[in-house]
Amino acid sequence: MLHNYLIMFKKRENIVEIEEGKLLSPKFDNDGLIPVITMCSKTKNILMHGYMNVEALKKTIETKEAHYFSRSRNQIWHKGKTSGFTQKVTEIRIDDDQDSIWLTVDIGDGSSCHVGYRSCFYRSIPLGPIKNGREVIMKFEEKEKSFDPEVVYKNQPNPTKI
Amino acid sequence: MLHNYLIMFKKRENIVEIEEGKLLSPKFDNDGLIPVITMCSKTKNILMHGYMNVEALKKTIETKEAHYFSRSRNQIWHKGKTSGFTQKVTEIRIDDDQDSIWLTVDIGDGSSCHVGYRSCFYRSIPLGPIKNGREVIMKFEEKEKSFDPEVVYKNQPNPTKI
Repeated sequence: MLHNYLIMFKKRENIVEIEEGKLLSPKFDNDGLIPVITMCSKTKNILMHGYMNVEALKKTIETKEAHYFSRSRNQIWHKGKTSGFTQKVTEIRIDDDQDSIWLTVDIGDGSSCHVGYRSCFYRSIPLGPIKNGREVIMKFEEKEKSFDPEVVYKNQPNPTKI
Repeated sequence: MLHNYLIMFKKRENIVEIEEGKLLSPKFDNDGLIPVITMCSKTKNILMHGYMNVEALKKTIETKEAHYFSRSRNQIWHKGKTSGFTQKVTEIRIDDDQDSIWLTVDIGDGSSCHVGYRSCFYRSIPLGPIKNGREVIMKFEEKEKSFDPEVVYKNQPNPTKI
């Protein structure tokens, strides 16, 4: 298995090859993970920010369905396996130094966020001077949840950690 | 300084507040960083994936120009200070568990990538079965560089690390 991955990924040997070359040569961090940006193909909104390990990246490329590595559950995570909200991958891009991934996905009329919103990024932070000694009050950009997480994820632990 | 940040950010105490509340309560990792997705307001393409520390986030909110924390230089990084390619922030969003940031920025006719492309994500990874024992060959989605990095960044070290 590892042997195949070594062949599949070009060894990172020089910066010009990494930046200007055509061979996939991703950099995984000390935990074996690469960060992933997931965009909705329809709205162009960002749906989520996640992580992949080697296996998740390989499965995503091969099955064209987004797989991540869940840091809270410490295992491969086929997105939508519990909720039904799978993500059909329409494009994968990688950045200049090949240490982050941008996924574009089709979720139809589905959702991405375990809290119940379509996107995990449902709140915005106001711009401008921060008032001294005041907490920053955000604005909800999605007004209504698109599904009821208590129905969809019944008895599943919440992945959010304090 | 630290005292102000403690007031500015709500202490992370319970999951419902973090997910459903209006108070900004970001989670920084063990290195004091939060990952940042940066989108072009005009094209909706992802320009880059970076990181912020507390100070970079505060400066970005207050000045409305993107500031990051450069892991390669280990310091605050006012994007565009060297190249002139500053990023005017039009929106900042945060995700459900408040551990990642989505920035939308106006870069006009400028660029974002130190290699010379408009976006750092100038290569796509082909989808489908990976041929056994073969490296993965990517496709360039941006055909031409939009500036000459040797002119713009003369004598600056390349931030890419092997």
